[in-house]
Amino acid sequence: MDRWKAFEARVREIKDLDGILGLMTWDEETYAPKAGRGPRGRHNATLEAIRHERLAAPELGALIEVLREDKSLGSDKATMIERIQRRRLREVAVPQALVRRLAEARSAALAAWQDAKRVGDFQAFRPYLQNVFELTRARAEAIGAAGGRYTSLYDVLLDEYEPGMTAARLEPLLSCLKEALVDLLEAIRSRGTPPDRSFLMGRFPDASQWALTLRLLADLGFDTERGRQDRSAHPFTNAVSEHDVRITTRIFDDNALSAIFWTIHEAGHGMYEQGFDEKDHGLALAEAPSMGIHESQSRLWENQVARSRAFWTHYLPLLKETFPDQLRGADVESFYRAVNVVKPGLLRVEADEVTYNLHILLRFELERALVGGQLSVADLPAAWNERMKRNLGVSPPNDGVGCMQDIHWAQGAIGYFPSYTLGNLYAAQLMAAFERAQPDAWGTIERGQFGVLLGWLRTNVHRSGYRQTAEETVAAASGEALAVEPFLRYLRAKFSHVYRL
Amino acid sequence: MDRWKAFEARVREIKDLDGILGLMTWDEETYAPKAGRGPRGRHNATLEAIRHERLAAPELGALIEVLREDKSLGSDKATMIERIQRRRLREVAVPQALVRRLAEARSAALAAWQDAKRVGDFQAFRPYLQNVFELTRARAEAIGAAGGRYTSLYDVLLDEYEPGMTAARLEPLLSCLKEALVDLLEAIRSRGTPPDRSFLMGRFPDASQWALTLRLLADLGFDTERGRQDRSAHPFTNAVSEHDVRITTRIFDDNALSAIFWTIHEAGHGMYEQGFDEKDHGLALAEAPSMGIHESQSRLWENQVARSRAFWTHYLPLLKETFPDQLRGADVESFYRAVNVVKPGLLRVEADEVTYNLHILLRFELERALVGGQLSVADLPAAWNERMKRNLGVSPPNDGVGCMQDIHWAQGAIGYFPSYTLGNLYAAQLMAAFERAQPDAWGTIERGQFGVLLGWLRTNVHRSGYRQTAEETVAAASGEALAVEPFLRYLRAKFSHVYRL
Repeated sequence: MDRWKAFEARVREIKDLDGILGLMTWDEETYAPKAGRGPRGRHNATLEAIRHERLAAPELGALIEVLREDKSLGSDKATMIERIQRRRLREVAVPQALVRRLAEARSAALAAWQDAKRVGDFQAFRPYLQNVFELTRARAEAIGAAGGRYTSLYDVLLDEYEPGMTAARLEPLLSCLKEALVDLLEAIRSRGTPPDRSFLMGRFPDASQWALTLRLLADLGFDTERGRQDRSAHPFTNAVSEHDVRITTRIFDDNALSAIFWTIHEAGHGMYEQGFDEKDHGLALAEAPSMGIHESQSRLWENQVARSRAFWTHYLPLLKETFPDQLRGADVESFYRAVNVVKPGLLRVEADEVTYNLHILLRFELERALVGGQLSVADLPAAWNERMKRNLGVSPPNDGVGCMQDIHWAQGAIGYFPSYTLGNLYAAQLMAAFERAQPDAWGTIERGQFGVLLGWLRTNVHRSGYRQTAEETVAAASGEALAVEPFLRYLRAKFSHVYRL
Repeated sequence: MDRWKAFEARVREIKDLDGILGLMTWDEETYAPKAGRGPRGRHNATLEAIRHERLAAPELGALIEVLREDKSLGSDKATMIERIQRRRLREVAVPQALVRRLAEARSAALAAWQDAKRVGDFQAFRPYLQNVFELTRARAEAIGAAGGRYTSLYDVLLDEYEPGMTAARLEPLLSCLKEALVDLLEAIRSRGTPPDRSFLMGRFPDASQWALTLRLLADLGFDTERGRQDRSAHPFTNAVSEHDVRITTRIFDDNALSAIFWTIHEAGHGMYEQGFDEKDHGLALAEAPSMGIHESQSRLWENQVARSRAFWTHYLPLLKETFPDQLRGADVESFYRAVNVVKPGLLRVEADEVTYNLHILLRFELERALVGGQLSVADLPAAWNERMKRNLGVSPPNDGVGCMQDIHWAQGAIGYFPSYTLGNLYAAQLMAAFERAQPDAWGTIERGQFGVLLGWLRTNVHRSGYRQTAEETVAAASGEALAVEPFLRYLRAKFSHVYRL
């Protein structure tokens, strides 16, 4: 039992370092003065090196070896050991020289990306991106060699965000999804009646928007005593601890909806972070089992809930009270339709629910080909543009709004994109399960009783934390294995109505 | 010179941890949600334990041993070694378990203090404070036992903030000061003509005050690209790095002056932190040699500068423009007199220049008795109230505005208070030296050319950093040893005029 205590103390220390690094990132994106970036980069590097040292410590390895053999510990403890071992292996497998080179390459690529994206100059970014891909491949090779369970380098990367998921498993799901989405988009384009959204074109004062987002947060069930909202250029959620969850939003005064949906999206992430079982706090079970399941929580609140007719039946009166002149012409039906406009566009972050996953699928195909060596970085823009034209019917005027629009690859987050689509699929399965479990599901939302849904998610998703894999969690909650049908059923029902198909 | 490089790398890591801990404190006092305090206390404890481990590392000890013998290094490097060795000795002397317990005790005491202070409930705070005092004594005992150069536990604590200073050395200075202040206060009370301050009694909107403080910051020379101002219950300055200096202020809408003077006070600290020599950044020479010299910078700007006639000759027009109705009746002479009202009161942070040091002397006496064991924490309120009555003629209606008014003891900053008085003494010496060096000294201030004074301070105080002790710094800048006379001369001249003595 002493060994377990020693292990747990090491886990708590690592989780404390995670929390501190989370706070540092939050600060950098919200309040930190720009001139402090140099020293701050050094602070981050120092703390990450200390975390590496802790994870790679031979004493931790020895504890894990012994504890793994102890069958008396029970499944929770076994899961914690497995979780930490997973993190540890990735730290131990990669030579420190490579870790440093990759960190340098990423930070150089990020800086180059910011400049190159602004002017749409892919050539200026190309060598940096190439470097990131090469070193990320080298990293995946090192991890693959140490683990030996992977069938491709891409799977090593994917596994970082979606433990146990493989490209081979994803592919049939995603190609089925793609086909159905292209069909639905075609139906909308050829036969649909586009909603009117002219009443969304006014000016919406910043202070009123901010107050509204705070009201929404409280209504939905984000605990503002155990978290807070601030502003940042790119909204995000960072948990300093389970009792201190920071989310951000951004406000444009010519757009009434952007801040609302960002806040609700991040609130979904935030309520998940606040929802782990109290007895797991500070330990390795108070974690999402995958990024896809994390995204399912943001997507569920943002799309399934906040783009529903029931939601706006409840909130349109408040919105009209807040912006009486701007929204004079809106009623619930017209507003519901207006927040569900489908319009193929260049940018993923502005995409609607029908086209969003087409953006993801394109990235999945391309990053797989880049990692696998079938596509060279030099050929990326042409491949990107060709697919955009084919899948979405649009052509980027320059690479800044084309293959350089996302921060992920510059940051080295290669293999992350599928998590977004998995999040959408899981969200649809979970919402359908909630409807089955709660016959008056939409009535609770129409009456603003969001606690019913949140309570259901707490019980069926949040509290289990890392105990179950993402797929196990969704299967237990919904009674179904991962599938695209619930998502497609949801889209077809919704957009048949919205577009009068 | 590989050994020096290895030493420097270790110093940078320790300074990085200092900066991260500084950010964490800033966050706790500004934005952190209250519910996150528990985990945050653990984060602090974890990072302080890591810093302890780094400072106590035998490898660092071995490097210091060898480098100390190397006479070829030069004085800057020798000073750095001495500085780190000073910190290291205090860490090595204190068992890691005690470090962690003290960190947790301080965090808990801080949270309890915030609640207990608000409602004036000393009993709720007492066990936490007792715990902090007991563990601080235990820490001082451990350090004293390792060093053996101290004549009392209190000197061990004092030495942390004022290297080389002792209670025995302070006592004659402070008792001479006390006598003179009591005399001056008596003269003001019995013979003085109190200034009129009725025009300061209006309402001063928060937003206008905030804008004004930002304007003052920029005017004085606080670099807002390399720092920022926020709000906190108790204003403070924390340097995350030399390029990221955080200060705070607080605003009351029934008080036009509180925020102005807090901002200027913290700007004094902040400009010092921004003023170290660029080549020392991230290393152990970019540090104040004592807290007294740090306080001299805040006090100099707050009192010597911002409570001068010249300062208000420059700023009263702006202030009247900002608050035209409220300040209609004010002219420079009446305003200058109004910001220098002497009135014995309950609160240190609201005290005037004559009574301020009487507040400090009371705390110095009480904390010495608490550490020495002559006073118990349970008896603190009675002892506090008795001395307040005797020295200042006032009686706190509750302990929230009595012995719980300051954050210091809850934070474990025991032995800190004398630094404030030393700061006042140093400030007077420095300002007198600036007057001698710059014949048109007050003209530059009257014209708002604060860069002249700031430049003089940069050259004569800031840049030398830890190279000289506090007393050496002031002696080199002023040509005088530490003394109370310059401060008393300044007070007598000023208050003879203000009170028409």
